[in-house]
Amino acid sequence: MPAPQRHVLVCLNLRPPGNAKGSCAEKGSEAVFDRLKAMVKDEGLGDRVIVNRTNCLKHCSQGVTVAVQPDNVWYARVTLEDLPEILQSHLREGRPLERLHMPDIPWE
Amino acid sequence: MPAPQRHVLVCLNLRPPGNAKGSCAEKGSEAVFDRLKAMVKDEGLGDRVIVNRTNCLKHCSQGVTVAVQPDNVWYARVTLEDLPEILQSHLREGRPLERLHMPDIPWE
Repeated sequence: MPAPQRHVLVCLNLRPPGNAKGSCAEKGSEAVFDRLKAMVKDEGLGDRVIVNRTNCLKHCSQGVTVAVQPDNVWYARVTLEDLPEILQSHLREGRPLERLHMPDIPWE
Repeated sequence: MPAPQRHVLVCLNLRPPGNAKGSCAEKGSEAVFDRLKAMVKDEGLGDRVIVNRTNCLKHCSQGVTVAVQPDNVWYARVTLEDLPEILQSHLREGRPLERLHMPDIPWE
């Protein structure tokens, strides 16, 4: 199949130190990306889920920002500790996590 | 709104020269990304469409690879010349372009 069942985008944008909004990379997004990518492979989802790193996802103050497509579900303040639940509930069972939903703010 | 109406992902992966599959960056994806991002802004879609650059989208031999979410439509061999039609037909009017659809190949 050309298209994945789920397509996960992790923001790796890095802003200079002292920037008021901060940035996802400053908040640990590289580790989130690396860990989630490894988990998807190790947990047997590598044939239907693609995990990608992106430039700015425009929700800097809410980082680490993660988008899950094609559900168009956007998560805020994602940490390494959230990944097992994202993988099991959303990526495996198709149930997005309410508790991590991005607040309705203007794009940054 | 936290989620965009459309989320466009452009593969910027670069493989070393001589790689059999080639890579999207080698086929001009950086120019595709830059141009599309500018067009989305200039054409007044910047408040509902986000364009991001990503690492490998796993369709190297078919690059430049572009995915349009949440439609989960994947395009193959995208060039600068295709961008006005992608913008007008898909991003503005919601009609994906059949002629650029990714062939059904195993992920690379």
